[in-house]
Amino acid sequence: MRDNKIHLYDTTLRDGTQGEGISLSVEDKVKIAIRLDQFGMDFIEGGWPGSNPKDMAFFDRMKEMKLNHARIAAFGSTCRPNVAADEDANLRALIDSGVTVATIFGKSWDLHVTEALKTTLDENLRMVGDSVRFLKANGLTVIFDAEHFFDGYKNNAAYAVSVLKAAEEAGADWVVLCDTNGGSLPDEVFTIVSAVVPQLAVPLGIHAHNDGELAVANTLAAIRAGAMQVQGTVNGIGERCGNANLVSVIPNLQLKLGYSCVSEENLGQLTKLSRYVAEIANMSMPNNQPFVGNSAFAHKGGIHVSAVLKNPQTYEHMEPELIGNRRRVLVSELAGQSNLLAKADELNVSFDQEKAESREMIKLIKEREYQGYQYEGAEASLSLLMLEGTGKLNELFSLESFKIFMEKSPERSILSEAMVKLNINGQIMHTAAEGNGPVNALDHALRKALENHFPCLGEMHLTDYKVRVLDEGEATAAKVRVLIESARNGEKWSTVGVSTNIIEASWEALVDSVRYLLWKEGCEAQEPEIQGELKVGIANH
Amino acid sequence: MRDNKIHLYDTTLRDGTQGEGISLSVEDKVKIAIRLDQFGMDFIEGGWPGSNPKDMAFFDRMKEMKLNHARIAAFGSTCRPNVAADEDANLRALIDSGVTVATIFGKSWDLHVTEALKTTLDENLRMVGDSVRFLKANGLTVIFDAEHFFDGYKNNAAYAVSVLKAAEEAGADWVVLCDTNGGSLPDEVFTIVSAVVPQLAVPLGIHAHNDGELAVANTLAAIRAGAMQVQGTVNGIGERCGNANLVSVIPNLQLKLGYSCVSEENLGQLTKLSRYVAEIANMSMPNNQPFVGNSAFAHKGGIHVSAVLKNPQTYEHMEPELIGNRRRVLVSELAGQSNLLAKADELNVSFDQEKAESREMIKLIKEREYQGYQYEGAEASLSLLMLEGTGKLNELFSLESFKIFMEKSPERSILSEAMVKLNINGQIMHTAAEGNGPVNALDHALRKALENHFPCLGEMHLTDYKVRVLDEGEATAAKVRVLIESARNGEKWSTVGVSTNIIEASWEALVDSVRYLLWKEGCEAQEPEIQGELKVGIANH
Repeated sequence: MRDNKIHLYDTTLRDGTQGEGISLSVEDKVKIAIRLDQFGMDFIEGGWPGSNPKDMAFFDRMKEMKLNHARIAAFGSTCRPNVAADEDANLRALIDSGVTVATIFGKSWDLHVTEALKTTLDENLRMVGDSVRFLKANGLTVIFDAEHFFDGYKNNAAYAVSVLKAAEEAGADWVVLCDTNGGSLPDEVFTIVSAVVPQLAVPLGIHAHNDGELAVANTLAAIRAGAMQVQGTVNGIGERCGNANLVSVIPNLQLKLGYSCVSEENLGQLTKLSRYVAEIANMSMPNNQPFVGNSAFAHKGGIHVSAVLKNPQTYEHMEPELIGNRRRVLVSELAGQSNLLAKADELNVSFDQEKAESREMIKLIKEREYQGYQYEGAEASLSLLMLEGTGKLNELFSLESFKIFMEKSPERSILSEAMVKLNINGQIMHTAAEGNGPVNALDHALRKALENHFPCLGEMHLTDYKVRVLDEGEATAAKVRVLIESARNGEKWSTVGVSTNIIEASWEALVDSVRYLLWKEGCEAQEPEIQGELKVGIANH
Repeated sequence: MRDNKIHLYDTTLRDGTQGEGISLSVEDKVKIAIRLDQFGMDFIEGGWPGSNPKDMAFFDRMKEMKLNHARIAAFGSTCRPNVAADEDANLRALIDSGVTVATIFGKSWDLHVTEALKTTLDENLRMVGDSVRFLKANGLTVIFDAEHFFDGYKNNAAYAVSVLKAAEEAGADWVVLCDTNGGSLPDEVFTIVSAVVPQLAVPLGIHAHNDGELAVANTLAAIRAGAMQVQGTVNGIGERCGNANLVSVIPNLQLKLGYSCVSEENLGQLTKLSRYVAEIANMSMPNNQPFVGNSAFAHKGGIHVSAVLKNPQTYEHMEPELIGNRRRVLVSELAGQSNLLAKADELNVSFDQEKAESREMIKLIKEREYQGYQYEGAEASLSLLMLEGTGKLNELFSLESFKIFMEKSPERSILSEAMVKLNINGQIMHTAAEGNGPVNALDHALRKALENHFPCLGEMHLTDYKVRVLDEGEATAAKVRVLIESARNGEKWSTVGVSTNIIEASWEALVDSVRYLLWKEGCEAQEPEIQGELKVGIANH
């Protein structure tokens, strides 16, 4: 029987960056490469050294790095028609990049050979063979990516396979079947890979794209048919609809199909890996992303919640902890008492389990949700509400007033100013700030009023701001719900505000984001002047 | 051979709303239902009438509607253990909802029967049979959803199938196999459905969830094995990781596998349907969404672009026009002139067909879209832009300045006042108004400044106001897009504004909504005093 190990080939840094709106600096790429290595990827494709100076700089940087496990691969194409491999600048660049693994793509669809390359089918075989031989002669591990293999096979199976054989005979270490246009279906992939496996001795890989929303399924089908390497990207980023999402492929292979990809411990880092890459690439992660999304193990309906608390298997396909995610219970209109108590527990709010108190709290939450609050996406505000209900929240400041002034004339861009007056332990802080919108100005003025008393707020920043108009039929007089996400040292929390006035709703969410952090950190107001003196005193010792 | 038609069962309005952060008003649901019907869905599941008043209100509203093709279905469960079907309030609510199709779910996993329902396997069969019989006796079409069927089958195949048979024998019109936890793999689904098909005469459906990123593949596998109904949601929204995405399932079935789902013409509306539902639900559509995403047929790399322009088949798995999407070339601007002229024609803007002028216009529109404008949902603003480009727009007023003042103190609800200074034919109109938010105050002040000169504006009102935050990572300093819908005498039009400042974006959309009406009606400014005298004069005749 064949080996149970599936080799992971990550191309986030090369094919992933072909995705619209995705752009990574050299340092971003280095950071991601280190993380991919820690996670246990076998190959990390870093870029196309012939194509741009940024990719070349990445390979230079990686020469200094010592990786635990992964090998860095450089990507390129075969030599061009009627050019000898050792005279091809593109192949030379692969060698010069200093990597030990080169991945080159070549045509395996006859239509592409004659229409795009404008050469003969025989010359294409020569290009593949010579290129592989040249790289092997220079001591590299060579992976041959057969571009458009599945479309090519459907059009001319014999020729498509002859291309693979040319690579094999020239000494390629891997041959990878690419569904470049992403339009193949899982059973086609299974049938074709099954037919190819017995014809070759070299191990096969699969490179799938997601144009049919089938990249993960196509990858699994190829593995089931005998492929042993998976090419894909973290979070499935990539050109058009993206590449096969390794974040979904890996747990399916390892936890459901019994293959071995990475250590159990590393698999437990999957959710963090996914979020880390999203953070560096500045992409927003969909909440409903399979396996690692925020909602992937979130339960809403009352029936589901009570069942899942009794036996998680009833509504979960696997244990979230295996991949570093966690179960969440959503509080919503549908919720009951078991949701609330589970939630209190999860949020670390010690909640009195007296029936009357929790019934009151459910009533309050339902009233607020009826008014338009939504605590599913704003768990920090829910924690505050629960803490208030138990009388355990110590309010560290209160609003005296705020004022906003905006002015617009045709010549000038709009001016937004905010004034905020707060009472902090009896001391009035009165500040003003500008911003590039009313909420931004308010945010600046609020922090300015607080930051001397609460230095920990300095590291906090807002990371997301969402507005949802409720009862849209009412147009500009409608109620709005504002959701704000804040972050500090990599930890995130979300808050909500509701009002017919967008500014008031934003203010409520802004204040909650601050109150939550102050509670969580157990902050108390510091006297800014005294603090200054103390610091001097300590420095003098 | 079996029928080639696959029946589409849309549950966007029921299972879709279980998705985290998704909340639809009754009117939202009605709008979506009408659109789903136009698209050609066979069944539209509207909600669970027993569970909350909002769903009941939806079914009441739908009684007034005349649909083209679809049948509205109501969702519920079987009767409870030891309760007769005709005494079960939940089943009665299905009948009272006035629909002709009832979908009830029942347990088909023995573990759930004994652990969650706390009853016997036989009593569960009784509940399924009696519930189906009761609904059939009341003249309904009955669809039985076998919850957790695949997990149940793996645990106890004989019992799982006996549940399906109980539904069949009681007269169910459809039996639907649900992968409730979303953890099944495509070949498991294929194998199990293939085993079940010969055991039943009733047609089968498939209901898949996306927890393994395999919902589309699992759905296709079930159809390939003999199922004839697909349950899913638009854009795959739903609990946890969502349901099978009909927007991907339909083109795979119809264009790749040769099944028949909707008419060719309706399939061409797929992209619009997807975006419409996203808009109403206020979800941001991922650019890389398969088939319908903005990037789904976008070509970035130089090699791809030149090849795809010679022969689209080289880098596209299908023609984007078949599903109403379009090819985009991200580096250069090649497409569009014919689109633009067609659009101008459609919008009744007489547009000079001189090449240079239309190229300028394409460039301008692309620039504005790059800045964040979106003209698909704001055709009135697009008309104004085109009219400006041709120099045919007569501006009837201009802004001198506006100011907004807001004040908040703990005792009082927030005060919002706006002052607007306009120049109308050289006459300065300076007005002030309050509102229950800054935009509402601005709207009031703007109309007050205009209405004496332009009496037709009196009948105009705003019907919708939407805010979308672009570049969400920037939080409160992010760009926002405001969409406003206005109406007058039953006619509606939409406008757009974009700015980092929400007030400025709203102002832009507000002003466009007025400018559009004035242009459309061919208004000219009237001198308010003279108008008053004339009216008196006419009245005296």
